[in-house]
Amino acid sequence: MSRQDEANSTPAAIDYSAAPPNLTTLANASLFETWRPRAHVLPPFGQIGDPCMHYTDPATGLFHVGWLFNGNGASGATTDDLVTYRDLNADGAPFIVPGGTNDPIAVFDGSVIPAGVDGKPTLLYTSVSYLPIQWTIPYTRGSETQSLAVSSDSGRNFTKAQHGPVIPSPPFALNVTGFRDPFVFQNGQLDTLLESGNGTWYTVISGGVHGDGPSQFLYRQYDPDFQYWEYLGEWWHEAANTTWGNGDWAGRWGYNFEVANVFSLNEEGYDSEGKIFTTLGAEWSLDPIVPEVSDFREMLWAAGNLTLVDGKAKFTPEMAGKIDWGHSAYAAAGKELPASSQASTKSGAPDRFISYVWLTGNFYGTQNPATNQQNWTGTFLLPRELSVGKINNVVDNELSREQGSWQISSESSGVLELSTLKQQIAREPLAKLKNGASYTEAGQTLRSPGSVAFVKSPDSKFYTMTASISFPQSARGSDLKAGFQILASEHETTTLYYQFSNESIVVDRTNSSAAAQTTDDIDSRNEAGRLRLFDVVEDGAEKMETLELTIVVDNAVVEIHANDRFALSTWARSWYDASKEIRFFHDGTGEATFGNITVYEGLYEAWPERSS
Amino acid sequence: MSRQDEANSTPAAIDYSAAPPNLTTLANASLFETWRPRAHVLPPFGQIGDPCMHYTDPATGLFHVGWLFNGNGASGATTDDLVTYRDLNADGAPFIVPGGTNDPIAVFDGSVIPAGVDGKPTLLYTSVSYLPIQWTIPYTRGSETQSLAVSSDSGRNFTKAQHGPVIPSPPFALNVTGFRDPFVFQNGQLDTLLESGNGTWYTVISGGVHGDGPSQFLYRQYDPDFQYWEYLGEWWHEAANTTWGNGDWAGRWGYNFEVANVFSLNEEGYDSEGKIFTTLGAEWSLDPIVPEVSDFREMLWAAGNLTLVDGKAKFTPEMAGKIDWGHSAYAAAGKELPASSQASTKSGAPDRFISYVWLTGNFYGTQNPATNQQNWTGTFLLPRELSVGKINNVVDNELSREQGSWQISSESSGVLELSTLKQQIAREPLAKLKNGASYTEAGQTLRSPGSVAFVKSPDSKFYTMTASISFPQSARGSDLKAGFQILASEHETTTLYYQFSNESIVVDRTNSSAAAQTTDDIDSRNEAGRLRLFDVVEDGAEKMETLELTIVVDNAVVEIHANDRFALSTWARSWYDASKEIRFFHDGTGEATFGNITVYEGLYEAWPERSS
Repeated sequence: MSRQDEANSTPAAIDYSAAPPNLTTLANASLFETWRPRAHVLPPFGQIGDPCMHYTDPATGLFHVGWLFNGNGASGATTDDLVTYRDLNADGAPFIVPGGTNDPIAVFDGSVIPAGVDGKPTLLYTSVSYLPIQWTIPYTRGSETQSLAVSSDSGRNFTKAQHGPVIPSPPFALNVTGFRDPFVFQNGQLDTLLESGNGTWYTVISGGVHGDGPSQFLYRQYDPDFQYWEYLGEWWHEAANTTWGNGDWAGRWGYNFEVANVFSLNEEGYDSEGKIFTTLGAEWSLDPIVPEVSDFREMLWAAGNLTLVDGKAKFTPEMAGKIDWGHSAYAAAGKELPASSQASTKSGAPDRFISYVWLTGNFYGTQNPATNQQNWTGTFLLPRELSVGKINNVVDNELSREQGSWQISSESSGVLELSTLKQQIAREPLAKLKNGASYTEAGQTLRSPGSVAFVKSPDSKFYTMTASISFPQSARGSDLKAGFQILASEHETTTLYYQFSNESIVVDRTNSSAAAQTTDDIDSRNEAGRLRLFDVVEDGAEKMETLELTIVVDNAVVEIHANDRFALSTWARSWYDASKEIRFFHDGTGEATFGNITVYEGLYEAWPERSS
Repeated sequence: MSRQDEANSTPAAIDYSAAPPNLTTLANASLFETWRPRAHVLPPFGQIGDPCMHYTDPATGLFHVGWLFNGNGASGATTDDLVTYRDLNADGAPFIVPGGTNDPIAVFDGSVIPAGVDGKPTLLYTSVSYLPIQWTIPYTRGSETQSLAVSSDSGRNFTKAQHGPVIPSPPFALNVTGFRDPFVFQNGQLDTLLESGNGTWYTVISGGVHGDGPSQFLYRQYDPDFQYWEYLGEWWHEAANTTWGNGDWAGRWGYNFEVANVFSLNEEGYDSEGKIFTTLGAEWSLDPIVPEVSDFREMLWAAGNLTLVDGKAKFTPEMAGKIDWGHSAYAAAGKELPASSQASTKSGAPDRFISYVWLTGNFYGTQNPATNQQNWTGTFLLPRELSVGKINNVVDNELSREQGSWQISSESSGVLELSTLKQQIAREPLAKLKNGASYTEAGQTLRSPGSVAFVKSPDSKFYTMTASISFPQSARGSDLKAGFQILASEHETTTLYYQFSNESIVVDRTNSSAAAQTTDDIDSRNEAGRLRLFDVVEDGAEKMETLELTIVVDNAVVEIHANDRFALSTWARSWYDASKEIRFFHDGTGEATFGNITVYEGLYEAWPERSS
């Protein structure tokens, strides 16, 4: 058999009504569609890495979404509505690759000044000269520098500046754990505090200091050509491996920060004068720390205040949380999306900050399953709008007074208003998700353990479901669990539920995939994320907040959004065609009332121009 | 004719008794011996570049002499007596070549900490990432960084540190004209002034600032591993294109410094607590400045004092001059040679500072003649010992009070002691030069223009001549010229003389080479250098200093040393075998008395182990 014959041969059709074989025995690319999402951003093939390098091109109003691609530079796409996307280059080819003088080894994350050098989109990125790099090992001097590249062809290519890095080293003699992922931003409060000119660009660079802890290094634009960036100090530093509060709400700060974004928000969206937020990845390990192994990477956010200490800007967190609780969710990267962008002009949205979270193909840090058979790895999650969220009429008690992922923004006569980070699927894709055929499932109250099938389950593994679950205040502290089983059949089921014992939304993946029994690396571990349902006063009476769920099932990608302030995304790699059922789920003692259940079928196709 | 035949064919013997052909018509390498020096340091073949990277290996006591080689890294040799040399690698192969992560384009000058990283010889050198680089054009950010390389094999190879540059950029946001040639040194005065630990290493980096002028950037060792160097400011800066005094004695400071050395001397030699000297190259052009053309490069020295200004060390010149007045002489690079070195142990010399001056193959900046036919280009001049020189009993008059290449170190009752830079051919090679067969020529006084042949001329074009010429004080300001013709025959002559009109030693090369008439790029321009013969008091009477000459003729290399404080070196590419005559020379009006004339024949062979 010649190679040509081999290439043309059609593998035997895969039978999704029978138990799966060991998937690694199947032909390359034969599982391409098996778990591939439809409404999500991912390259036409291959491995998607960190989201980064997004921007709105002022010349076109198109929003550019970027990602590291196949470990060899970065690719991207444009969108005029945050719903559908168009690859910048054929076959998703990169707009920048490593191999230049500044980046002989790799191109790491960067960010774009939309009107930078000569008014053109200008990328500030981490140019890598030496590997390995990790917080667990001694830092190789000069391994990460920050360099410029400029696009003159609407972002299809970013041409590297023919000069050395514009930030050629970490701060003098600082033994850093990392020094990468420059995120450029403008900020009115910083301008005022530091007496910078209006519209000055800043960048934070993520990293930390060996023996000391994680940091964000702050720099300020020095010249109109972006050749020099003035170091303004570690505007944010945390002691190594400490936590926010008791650690329940925002994991650990760890030893090294990565992929930090800095932006400011009001209740509508992006506001240069608004409250300062940062999203960041935190890396840490259990003791003993093993060289070149980072056990955990957590995708966090923090918001806080800005002060001048000894002439330097200092960021102090006032609340912190997780952007997404899924173990595969990491490296969120966002960008200001101005009201003048094409997407916002059409939707009437104000200035926004849009963030894309990466969902790695694995339980981050493990192997990817059946990589060659799938021929793609990882995806972005749906773009999210971030803003300042308010939780009103909250009872002033221990629950609301804990140091958590919220802060008290006002109080009067024993009732509090809490502020937090509001996260919603961006309005355009959210509207589009709900735009197809839909049906409702009647609500019901469950009082005893068991599962109850929906009257009607969706026709496919592509749908969005909204639902609410109400609990009596007596449920607090009980063993009650309530939620849904999805992607279910007689062979498989993925159970997601709220459990009061630790105030968490849990995704039980024990039985999510029949393939996990035949094939390595299909992870079956639970996912869990903490969400407090506060006591609130409604019509003069105390009650517990209702759990409001939006669940997006895009084939094997499951996104769970709750109460506009919680997200947990993961993989549920169901095998059987039949695994489409939805069921109510109850366990433990107590009552759960399900309501407002709508299933929107089919989802939309984010890549209409790609040949499949 | 096959290529093998061609390679084996013997070119017709060259007839040095007949007029030369156009030399570029001759076979490659056929002129290898024609002008090649014998007692000088140069590679076995190819182009020698800047001297640099010298050091005494503490493990062996051998002195290592280095040079940039063929534009592709650096090679070197060792010596145990400053007379004979042994190549570090077979065929003069380099001990470092460009092409690494830090130096993809080139390796420029560096210097060696003899017991550096892990106690091993450690090279700090300029790693080049972008070209072109010149003070006449905008500086490419990041083109020159300073990196480390360490030798573990007695200097035969310097292995580049597997990390980025230790000085990764010029001072922040400074628009430099150059930033290269780090010269490491220790200095007791700096230690005291800056409260550094004893034996702290410093480095100056040569360059300048666009629109501002040339500078030496001072750095201090920050850590025992030499990973970081603390920037201490421009310890020396001169306004662009200014001069020392009226410019007669030390040319122009120009626009950019190169190849700066810093060291301290007493009257014996090197002294960490002695007077601070620097040698430096100064680059400048006539108006209008043409991009990528530096019309002039001058090889200067300066000595001065050290003060603390606003907490920073500042060097202020008190006297300045030229290391060598020849247009081909540049890039002097020296090193402390400790008394414990093999050479000094044998000769009984104290700690010294030994400097090698580069003699480019051309009138620096022009083309090299018959490059392929010669198959080598350029040489070093003989190593020089530098120390503080004294000129005693100098009459206090306008001549001694001028701002020149000397300073008044003491005065009493109208008689001055002047200090200056003393330069002598190092004692070991000087002794060796005078070690062979010699003869004396009787002195005589010439009173009218003309030339008078020596009774006996040397047998070859390899010899050293010492002589003195005395002039009456009435000669000052006259049109008198007096000196010698060398490498002379009926066809050719090179005339060197002192002329009072501008107090200069001149080398008239108009008729130095018959080949200049057939072949391009054999430069026939005059060389000239300024030497003041002071009025001194001797036995109670005023007289003019005697001109004391040491002239080394090493084939086409001519070194003229005068009064231990003047050097002018150049090429005199005589063609005819017969051009060996020496003649007395007189022109103009006045009397010149020649005396103490000795000719030492043959010179020594500096490379006894090389096959020729």
